[in-house]
Amino acid sequence: MFFHKQELQFKATPDKPDAIYARKLQEVLGGQYGEISVAMQYAFQGWNMHLPGKYRDLVFGIGAEEFGHVEMLATMIAQLLEDAPIGITTDAVQDDPTVAAVVGGMDVQHAIVAGAGARPVDSNGNPWQGSYITSSGNLLADFTANANAEMQGRIQVARLYHMTDDSGVRDMLAFLLARDTMHQNQWLRAIEELKADGLEELPTPSNFPQKKEHTEVSYQYLNFSDGEHAKDGGWASGPSIDGKGEHTYHDGPTTSAPMPPPTRPDARLYGTTDLPNAVEKIAGTVQDKLHRE
Amino acid sequence: MFFHKQELQFKATPDKPDAIYARKLQEVLGGQYGEISVAMQYAFQGWNMHLPGKYRDLVFGIGAEEFGHVEMLATMIAQLLEDAPIGITTDAVQDDPTVAAVVGGMDVQHAIVAGAGARPVDSNGNPWQGSYITSSGNLLADFTANANAEMQGRIQVARLYHMTDDSGVRDMLAFLLARDTMHQNQWLRAIEELKADGLEELPTPSNFPQKKEHTEVSYQYLNFSDGEHAKDGGWASGPSIDGKGEHTYHDGPTTSAPMPPPTRPDARLYGTTDLPNAVEKIAGTVQDKLHRE
Amino acid sequence: MFFHKQELQFKATPDKPDAIYARKLQEVLGGQYGEISVAMQYAFQGWNMHLPGKYRDLVFGIGAEEFGHVEMLATMIAQLLEDAPIGITTDAVQDDPTVAAVVGGMDVQHAIVAGAGARPVDSNGNPWQGSYITSSGNLLADFTANANAEMQGRIQVARLYHMTDDSGVRDMLAFLLARDTMHQNQWLRAIEELKADGLEELPTPSNFPQKKEHTEVSYQYLNFSDGEHAKDGGWASGPSIDGKGEHTYHDGPTTSAPMPPPTRPDARLYGTTDLPNAVEKIAGTVQDKLHRE
Amino acid sequence: MFFHKQELQFKATPDKPDAIYARKLQEVLGGQYGEISVAMQYAFQGWNMHLPGKYRDLVFGIGAEEFGHVEMLATMIAQLLEDAPIGITTDAVQDDPTVAAVVGGMDVQHAIVAGAGARPVDSNGNPWQGSYITSSGNLLADFTANANAEMQGRIQVARLYHMTDDSGVRDMLAFLLARDTMHQNQWLRAIEELKADGLEELPTPSNFPQKKEHTEVSYQYLNFSDGEHAKDGGWASGPSIDGKGEHTYHDGPTTSAPMPPPTRPDARLYGTTDLPNAVEKIAGTVQDKLHRE
Amino acid sequence: MFFHKQELQFKATPDKPDAIYARKLQEVLGGQYGEISVAMQYAFQGWNMHLPGKYRDLVFGIGAEEFGHVEMLATMIAQLLEDAPIGITTDAVQDDPTVAAVVGGMDVQHAIVAGAGARPVDSNGNPWQGSYITSSGNLLADFTANANAEMQGRIQVARLYHMTDDSGVRDMLAFLLARDTMHQNQWLRAIEELKADGLEELPTPSNFPQKKEHTEVSYQYLNFSDGEHAKDGGWASGPSIDGKGEHTYHDGPTTSAPMPPPTRPDARLYGTTDLPNAVEKIAGTVQDKLHRE
Amino acid sequence: MFFHKQELQFKATPDKPDAIYARKLQEVLGGQYGEISVAMQYAFQGWNMHLPGKYRDLVFGIGAEEFGHVEMLATMIAQLLEDAPIGITTDAVQDDPTVAAVVGGMDVQHAIVAGAGARPVDSNGNPWQGSYITSSGNLLADFTANANAEMQGRIQVARLYHMTDDSGVRDMLAFLLARDTMHQNQWLRAIEELKADGLEELPTPSNFPQKKEHTEVSYQYLNFSDGEHAKDGGWASGPSIDGKGEHTYHDGPTTSAPMPPPTRPDARLYGTTDLPNAVEKIAGTVQDKLHRE
Repeated sequence: MFFHKQELQFKATPDKPDAIYARKLQEVLGGQYGEISVAMQYAFQGWNMHLPGKYRDLVFGIGAEEFGHVEMLATMIAQLLEDAPIGITTDAVQDDPTVAAVVGGMDVQHAIVAGAGARPVDSNGNPWQGSYITSSGNLLADFTANANAEMQGRIQVARLYHMTDDSGVRDMLAFLLARDTMHQNQWLRAIEELKADGLEELPTPSNFPQKKEHTEVSYQYLNFSDGEHAKDGGWASGPSIDGKGEHTYHDGPTTSAPMPPPTRPDARLYGTTDLPNAVEKIAGTVQDKLHRE
Repeated sequence: MFFHKQELQFKATPDKPDAIYARKLQEVLGGQYGEISVAMQYAFQGWNMHLPGKYRDLVFGIGAEEFGHVEMLATMIAQLLEDAPIGITTDAVQDDPTVAAVVGGMDVQHAIVAGAGARPVDSNGNPWQGSYITSSGNLLADFTANANAEMQGRIQVARLYHMTDDSGVRDMLAFLLARDTMHQNQWLRAIEELKADGLEELPTPSNFPQKKEHTEVSYQYLNFSDGEHAKDGGWASGPSIDGKGEHTYHDGPTTSAPMPPPTRPDARLYGTTDLPNAVEKIAGTVQDKLHRE
Repeated sequence: MFFHKQELQFKATPDKPDAIYARKLQEVLGGQYGEISVAMQYAFQGWNMHLPGKYRDLVFGIGAEEFGHVEMLATMIAQLLEDAPIGITTDAVQDDPTVAAVVGGMDVQHAIVAGAGARPVDSNGNPWQGSYITSSGNLLADFTANANAEMQGRIQVARLYHMTDDSGVRDMLAFLLARDTMHQNQWLRAIEELKADGLEELPTPSNFPQKKEHTEVSYQYLNFSDGEHAKDGGWASGPSIDGKGEHTYHDGPTTSAPMPPPTRPDARLYGTTDLPNAVEKIAGTVQDKLHRE
Repeated sequence: MFFHKQELQFKATPDKPDAIYARKLQEVLGGQYGEISVAMQYAFQGWNMHLPGKYRDLVFGIGAEEFGHVEMLATMIAQLLEDAPIGITTDAVQDDPTVAAVVGGMDVQHAIVAGAGARPVDSNGNPWQGSYITSSGNLLADFTANANAEMQGRIQVARLYHMTDDSGVRDMLAFLLARDTMHQNQWLRAIEELKADGLEELPTPSNFPQKKEHTEVSYQYLNFSDGEHAKDGGWASGPSIDGKGEHTYHDGPTTSAPMPPPTRPDARLYGTTDLPNAVEKIAGTVQDKLHRE
Repeated sequence: MFFHKQELQFKATPDKPDAIYARKLQEVLGGQYGEISVAMQYAFQGWNMHLPGKYRDLVFGIGAEEFGHVEMLATMIAQLLEDAPIGITTDAVQDDPTVAAVVGGMDVQHAIVAGAGARPVDSNGNPWQGSYITSSGNLLADFTANANAEMQGRIQVARLYHMTDDSGVRDMLAFLLARDTMHQNQWLRAIEELKADGLEELPTPSNFPQKKEHTEVSYQYLNFSDGEHAKDGGWASGPSIDGKGEHTYHDGPTTSAPMPPPTRPDARLYGTTDLPNAVEKIAGTVQDKLHRE
Repeated sequence: MFFHKQELQFKATPDKPDAIYARKLQEVLGGQYGEISVAMQYAFQGWNMHLPGKYRDLVFGIGAEEFGHVEMLATMIAQLLEDAPIGITTDAVQDDPTVAAVVGGMDVQHAIVAGAGARPVDSNGNPWQGSYITSSGNLLADFTANANAEMQGRIQVARLYHMTDDSGVRDMLAFLLARDTMHQNQWLRAIEELKADGLEELPTPSNFPQKKEHTEVSYQYLNFSDGEHAKDGGWASGPSIDGKGEHTYHDGPTTSAPMPPPTRPDARLYGTTDLPNAVEKIAGTVQDKLHRE
């Protein structure tokens, strides 16, 4: 169960309205790596987790915080929109380039659809969607997804920090940056503990018997481009990071197979073949049946 | 530039057609973590990269291989569909539960739309979309995204391995599993080298001056759920993995702020306020202007 | 069957072109609550309706009108785009802030994709989609959806009215506002008649035997937030609007249940469990089968 | 802020796994009218609301409950999937039509992507999306949207009730049905109080001066189909429900206007006109400029 | 304006219900090449057209017919769903493989969401979307899009014809097939007339001065794969179909250029560069400004 | 297999950065008719093709070239973004209308999400999606789709040519225009050869026995609008282009059928009927069963 408290985790009030910035801030609310994504991702990982204890408590503990971050951003955006211009554009614009920029740069749905309110969309107005999140049940993989999400999120907030000089907005972003720092550390630590606890190891999924894979290509670097420098990386020679192989470098593939011949599906699918009169020519039950139809 | 060779990197021919399995295999062709996703992700990372050398050669080198994996899967799927039933369902089904399963379990668009061909969709028929990929220009974050993609991909292939006993399909999957092993190792190694090369460090983005963030909450574990075990993790006490802080544990938030008062945008947006006659009451230019209109 | 007449229901010609406004007007053509949505919604409700007579004639009668409103808006948008600037932006912009605003504020796909034509998208360029519409077969619910659609639509048109001073555009919007007034009244009246005709009542669906639901919580207001004022509403005490219960007020839930233990699905799905060697340990047929594979 | 408690509002445990039913239940978790939709809708309405007090406390109070319903459904779905078949389909199917049905009827992404976990999608696997929700800032319209959402939701749950005989599932659905009963009553009551409090009236938005609309068509029923029975409804004669007009009935439109002539946009957009050599023929600056390019 | 008549263009009644087939038939109602697509495509082409006369009358004349085909399909689908099973699946399935197939193969949203009604989706439940249609203002291109749409549509209907033996369904499909025959002929004829009327020619857009393009590669066949047979086609030698060039065959590209060096955007975007301390090192206004922030 | 070469097919370097133009150029990279679409479309047509030889070599040969065009555009876009403004908008804008235009007109996700990099989206930020492509297995239809794609693509590039005066950008566009000229010719030629080779003819699919369609309407022009000029076209009289019929002209439909009566699905779907007490009234097994539940 979730309980709501009419307080924010941190102050979310701008010095003054700024409709263009409100649009930009939507990215970290409703974008691919916005707060809705991490809130939902951690919640689903909790509901789908197969073991009790510290990892499950962790995703539940952080997930609820992230819903509060959605709230901080939505609250901030509504205030940034408080003076969004609605009037006749042409007049005002001729006098003032700033208005021209606002007219061009704000999310017009903020006014037309939401009446100066926040929306569950990104900075280009694409609606948030469930396909942004990851919850596979495999914790090593999912925590890596979480670490990535917190990294991408912190990068976006850092970029947004430089796109305003509003001290109220920057204050809130400074708080979110700090929490992203925590969450990056936390997921990377959780990955280490998963391995230390013997729950997963590399390559993931570690329970799949590696001998069933074609191990001769499991540690080969295959260069399908003509750049020469990839051979200088630790992925092209030396021991692999999973401790189970030794990397080798190869220009192009080490294996190949002929393409199988083109397929010949049922003639009644009307694909083009070099048997263009196939339907007429096919003997037997299929054809008889077809004729009777 | 890309050049195509009419050979496959590995044999991709099933023992026999299986339309239901063809649908399942679409997941690793056109799903969130399918081969189109990694091929496109690595290609865009290459085009957007800000430094030459081994990392850029790496993403180009692997990206082209992944387009070849899309091809292997598409080729396999077309063959799995070669005998997909098209005829009248009711008759056949009454005789044979297997046909019933096929009728229910295949992707009907494989027949109706593609004429027994592969499609750029996932196993539920959702079209592949550009929002699946990640290319931020920050390599530590992006390589973490890549590591996650290869982990999720290997998990899905491992699951699919058990959903068939067709030795031809399994042979191909065993190859893909091995390449996913390589690619997991490779991205994790590349992350280590980025740090060793002094190009990025934690927290990412490392160039953003951490002193600008609210550092008092940068290493606090804040428990917004009531599970007790999250305090047992290395994220709740001890040194942080970025080497820059010491974790502490807190039940709930350590900060709070009142919610700001509700916003009062332009009355002509017709939101509901406790000033329901706001339009009539507002004095001055806005109102005069409105009346003139 | 539908028949088209090359006339409009009302004049749809602007005084002068305005490419920015053309973009905004797309919202009520192809947005969530635009005219395509209501036209399609009423048409599908007609095709899916389970009873003949006045309600079915009503949705057909109005649905066709709404397709004509799509036409009015498309015609208007094409004219608003007639002088959309196409030339080199940098030169013109330096001389004229208005051009700067147009460059920033118009929908660039209007020019690049449609050659100065209307498109089936909203004001942010999101394509119209079938998931906007509602047709459940239950008329009380569907007419409530219709009433909401006409309300949201009239609000959006009213907002758009203030975003232009073009008398041609305003003339058309004044017509659409009047029709939305009619349609709000109409659906709310139809809801009353449905109840008066004994076809549906509250709660919907009224044929589901209410005794099968957990009636002890059917009229409880449960406050999951800490605001104190919700108890002042008629939903927190007094008789319910369906005439079948008496509301009571409760701070938080009146029921609760422990979370069930984490699930343990098939080990071959490779989720993380505290039985990391689960595959090896599982006895019996599953494991034997797995080994044979 | 949101706080999570590791308890459910009501028991959510099935008698036995049922992978097909798990798929169906996704509709009320992640579909257009599922619990994510109402949770998000009420939350955004709260963040965007322009007045404090009972209505804002109401949407916050209910919104948090709905996030808990998402949790109940996700927990239930994970358990329904606990024994989802993963093995080789063809063998098992030949022996057992039930397995055939499961193979055909389950959501294959439940196994391949989520490892037997719940997902933020509907029963056809379409990801939940932000465009499902409504938050316009106008409470009369938004509460009508809410009433509709609770009606559609209760209808879907009632349908799902008959699609299983699992007493554990039915027990949970009986709880959700009761809460939907409450929420239908609550939003309809809130609409009445909005009007009684003088905050909004019909037609919405009531602050828009109705005299600006073309009032001559504000209460006309215009029949664009050939059904004869729509004239029997209260929308075709008698006083309107907003108390401001008298309905009249008309066969077809009462107004019409000629279609404006086709538009002639910039020749460099290369649309087809009857001036096919337009570029060559256009005189003056545009053409000169074009030639210089 | 559109007017609706409560008659169908052709009989659309099945011999008996068939819920699986209802799902399949959704493809030609709401799929990429379904009837909604062509109805909308022709309507938008009419509204956006830049010349009056026979071509504009043509798209309006056919567009309205296609809306009537949507109606025929929706009506048929609702009837096919009339006996869709709703009850408890497990019992029935054990007795009857046909029920197993229905359970697996029907669109579950047909029952849960639409109450046995048609929906604006394709056969996999993907909602119809505005991005399916084409209306560029250039008639040669758009009529080619139309010809393709009618071809793809006729192929899909032909495939669906073989997926049922219901004589009522086949009767309706036989009608739609005939109309698709007409419409294929019609668009190809219209393309010929466009050229004969001197309105467009190849390559489209024909008004763009071809001398501005790099004409040295305008008729070269460049083979980026290793197949040898493409040189046998009329595109590899001989006169081009636009009558303006002579084809030549080349193995691979005839031009090339070095990749430009990696970009170095603003350091405050925090991309990874080999100047990891870039922010500190950059001199001048940007840096000064940054420090002041 | 695909191999990458770190060279471009043609120079793709602008004279100077231009963030607004970068956004516009996204249309032909990731839009409906952008280069990703044609690259993917030709690749899937190759993988799904049912006959070897010149047509299959053709789609593979061109498909790989198109992936290289994606690369040229992505490279160009990254360079156009190299100086994209990131700083505080309000200050700069007041001094300079050009900055106002850039602020309003650029794709903000280019900065926030991609750090000044290209993205797999169109010019409004809609992600590329798999539903843009066509691969039916029927080559006459698919090559018509290809011809259309190259026409739409060339039109869009021609429009974009006039939206910049950057000679570097125009140089690259002049190359792409030439290749589109080639590809238009090529697909139209391939269509002619398909017919000459006896592989397909009109109407497509030509193998479907035309006598099964309702041939009486196969060549009728049915005018569902009131324009008079459609009768002047070659589609309204004279021989059909497939050589198999003679066109006739008709005002409106030549056939009609009554709408079937409304459907009466299972009462437990809770649709509204004029049998509102249907559940209680239905006798026999269904009802007994329901009561037992």
